[in-house]
Amino acid sequence: MFEFAHLKIGVLGTGMVGSEIASKLVQLGHDVRMGSRTADNQKAAEWVKANGAKASQGTFADAAAFGEIVFNCTAGSASIEALKLVEAHNLNGKLVIDIANPLDFSGGMPPTLTVCNTDSLGEQIQRTFPGAKVVKTLNTVNCKVMVNPSLVPGEHDIFMSGNDAAAKTQVRGILKDWFGWKSVIDLGDIRTARLVEMYVPFWAQLFMQNQNPNFNIKIVK
Amino acid sequence: MFEFAHLKIGVLGTGMVGSEIASKLVQLGHDVRMGSRTADNQKAAEWVKANGAKASQGTFADAAAFGEIVFNCTAGSASIEALKLVEAHNLNGKLVIDIANPLDFSGGMPPTLTVCNTDSLGEQIQRTFPGAKVVKTLNTVNCKVMVNPSLVPGEHDIFMSGNDAAAKTQVRGILKDWFGWKSVIDLGDIRTARLVEMYVPFWAQLFMQNQNPNFNIKIVK
Repeated sequence: MFEFAHLKIGVLGTGMVGSEIASKLVQLGHDVRMGSRTADNQKAAEWVKANGAKASQGTFADAAAFGEIVFNCTAGSASIEALKLVEAHNLNGKLVIDIANPLDFSGGMPPTLTVCNTDSLGEQIQRTFPGAKVVKTLNTVNCKVMVNPSLVPGEHDIFMSGNDAAAKTQVRGILKDWFGWKSVIDLGDIRTARLVEMYVPFWAQLFMQNQNPNFNIKIVK
Repeated sequence: MFEFAHLKIGVLGTGMVGSEIASKLVQLGHDVRMGSRTADNQKAAEWVKANGAKASQGTFADAAAFGEIVFNCTAGSASIEALKLVEAHNLNGKLVIDIANPLDFSGGMPPTLTVCNTDSLGEQIQRTFPGAKVVKTLNTVNCKVMVNPSLVPGEHDIFMSGNDAAAKTQVRGILKDWFGWKSVIDLGDIRTARLVEMYVPFWAQLFMQNQNPNFNIKIVK
């Protein structure tokens, strides 16, 4: 288990992913501040009301300043614009766990990506906040599976990408000890965020066919 | 088993993938013509010598005209240029099984793609040869696994994408009855070739880490 059992955590984003992550973190005993564009966001207010004394809300900058660890759960196609509302010093030296996917559904299925191939959202965030320790993870599964991998039966894998080895050790602990992941595969530096982001349109197509979000991939060898 | 047990098949490309596919097809009893830019290609000549009376060689156009089914095993980043050497009438009405990946390793690992996201090599080939029945498949595994999936233990999946339902039924038979695949997932029309092509840089990174090409993914649900 983690040596720091009780943390202050910022969760950027008020959508399904942000709510799932933030609620799980409160259940684990952490103090969680949900950030959005405005300090009085209605969805964040509803989340705070439902999650009790350890839940709070604020702007993106408020949530980032509050957190010892920060989760990016904003809509990926708008993440950079949203994150620019966080002053860089609020992320300096911090672990930033990037879960977002830069998806564009405007052309129908399968979705396309607003950045890919020679770059990725994970890399953009690391470049925008060079003082942060960005780790891309969890973006390859549905948000309920992220925090409860046993929703998918049997063995399956989650991936992480990042430049900072200590940050990835910390993320491995979060994934295993907090969320229950059994197999965590370190893909390499933050450039490998491209790989997991480029898999997500594939995921979306499989989801559309199966009509069930509780699936994942396993590397068989 | 297939109703047509004995076929004439064209294999475009003389590299590792072309050789593996063509050799397997000869072993299955088919007549196979390997095509390249020139009728006297040295690698094709060596392949013919090693594979006996059912093996022959020719230009891309020769091999395409010869085949009742045609496999595209050219280097994906140059496939369209190579395939333009095939006169379109040589592919009209035929099943074209596209195995190629448009990879660019010039920037190091992970590789990038020369086409992706809003288009794919599979789609380009279908557009270039509207009279062909293009099915994308097998590009997500190493060439030895393509024709011998039991090199990877346990359950794992292969995918196919294409516009023509009858052609996909035929490909399912080829994958199962000829090559031994147990699980074949139909992803949808040829646009879904994007999804499997965009997975391949991920595959390449996993290969680099594992130093063993005998792996694959399984969809766990």
